[in-house]
Amino acid sequence: MWKPWPVTGLRPGRRERQEDAVIAEEPLEIQIALPNAEGAEVLPVAVTMRTPGDDEDLALGFLYTEGLIDDPRWIRAGLSSERPAPHTVRVVLPPDHGIDRQRLTRHFYMTSSCGVCGKAAVEAVFVQGYPPLPEDEPVIPLSLLVDLPRRMREAQRLFHRTGGLHAAAIFDPAGELLWVREDVGRHNAVDKVIGAALRAGRIPLSHAIMLVSGRAGFEIAQKTLRAGIPILAALGAPSSLTLELAHAAGMTVVGFLRPEGANVYTAPWRIAG
Amino acid sequence: MWKPWPVTGLRPGRRERQEDAVIAEEPLEIQIALPNAEGAEVLPVAVTMRTPGDDEDLALGFLYTEGLIDDPRWIRAGLSSERPAPHTVRVVLPPDHGIDRQRLTRHFYMTSSCGVCGKAAVEAVFVQGYPPLPEDEPVIPLSLLVDLPRRMREAQRLFHRTGGLHAAAIFDPAGELLWVREDVGRHNAVDKVIGAALRAGRIPLSHAIMLVSGRAGFEIAQKTLRAGIPILAALGAPSSLTLELAHAAGMTVVGFLRPEGANVYTAPWRIAG
Repeated sequence: MWKPWPVTGLRPGRRERQEDAVIAEEPLEIQIALPNAEGAEVLPVAVTMRTPGDDEDLALGFLYTEGLIDDPRWIRAGLSSERPAPHTVRVVLPPDHGIDRQRLTRHFYMTSSCGVCGKAAVEAVFVQGYPPLPEDEPVIPLSLLVDLPRRMREAQRLFHRTGGLHAAAIFDPAGELLWVREDVGRHNAVDKVIGAALRAGRIPLSHAIMLVSGRAGFEIAQKTLRAGIPILAALGAPSSLTLELAHAAGMTVVGFLRPEGANVYTAPWRIAG
Repeated sequence: MWKPWPVTGLRPGRRERQEDAVIAEEPLEIQIALPNAEGAEVLPVAVTMRTPGDDEDLALGFLYTEGLIDDPRWIRAGLSSERPAPHTVRVVLPPDHGIDRQRLTRHFYMTSSCGVCGKAAVEAVFVQGYPPLPEDEPVIPLSLLVDLPRRMREAQRLFHRTGGLHAAAIFDPAGELLWVREDVGRHNAVDKVIGAALRAGRIPLSHAIMLVSGRAGFEIAQKTLRAGIPILAALGAPSSLTLELAHAAGMTVVGFLRPEGANVYTAPWRIAG
């Protein structure tokens, strides 16, 4: 599933407006219905950010692999599911489910705190709050922007050794690398680099650039915004939810950053040339 | 951070034993200490799988970007942290923290259900249980294995359109593609493809192969094992925790799968030639 999104393709001396498709990313609420005398009790179990499509597969696979539904009879017989709302899948257990309700309730708590349930994900970020971004600043020349991945790679001690770590780096507007951190998890790398800035007493970083080695999903955008950073650049693609959040917040999102150019999806005025 | 792990490098007609380094992945428990009259109350807030290193940065960045610590005075002054155990960071709040304890408690519930707290992650998977894997089966020829990524790509309708989706596919031992699913999140793609198998009443898949387009982190390995699948193949690298789990369970893990060969990290007897 993908969504159209207007893109500014940047090459040296050239700005080109084009339609591009971005990967759709939206929250899905997974519920379990436990039949009882009055009908059924519905428990929200999890909210996950996903690409729409095959939602029933996702809900069943999630509940099974997380160990929440594992009765071999259900596995053999299959379970029915409903779509009570566009981004909700409700898995209906058989009346004799005999499930440990407390286990479900623990999982329910897990996600009642996630900040997404019952609210649009983008709205939830605004409710949580973030430092204001400077409206027109900083402005970064394209020639500097396209050189940042090289500077990050040079600072990575581990990348070549294992061939598989995600990296996140924060640069100042002159392209000076402030911190770089690595992790097997892309969100961990971003948390680490923001944590380094926090320990240095440098949050909010209202004139900095966040660079990530992978794709820019919603979680990455939300964390970058919390740090007050106005430019998020990724070697990979942004998701639709990232762009919706960035558009609403006035944050610049750059994707497919390459030596020869990049795509800008939101607030393109922060990239010059 | 990386760990040494013995690897069997497979090329047509050649098996080569070599030492390789894999990315370290281990659970980190993030705690908050709230000072009180008796000393301090310690609340476990989250457990995250991460690459060891910069753990304090990770803990602070996580707590800040998740909105759990956001007092501007702390942000300016910095927060102290302790290492009460090797894989634990404890962030100590100032005595006048005035923090919403209920918010923390909700987060505490979130992770008391994650199955990792207080237990080694690998052990927790064994406690949760998974279908037994057939000891010596299936045996897949290398020539078939290296062709699976091409077969998966052909079945992906979306990959070329957006350039950034993760894919997971399940193959039978003859290399026939059973299901392929895509998502912006790698674990979602795996949940979706296992959910498809569940809906078809085909779990456990004790003779199947799981192929993932990215890296094989612990979460992916755990889900594959829950589906009873004995071979996990990845285009990218496996993590150390994936290999520890696979080694203990007798699951075959293949990494860096390319047309010209692959690396096998565990139970290499399931790959022939």
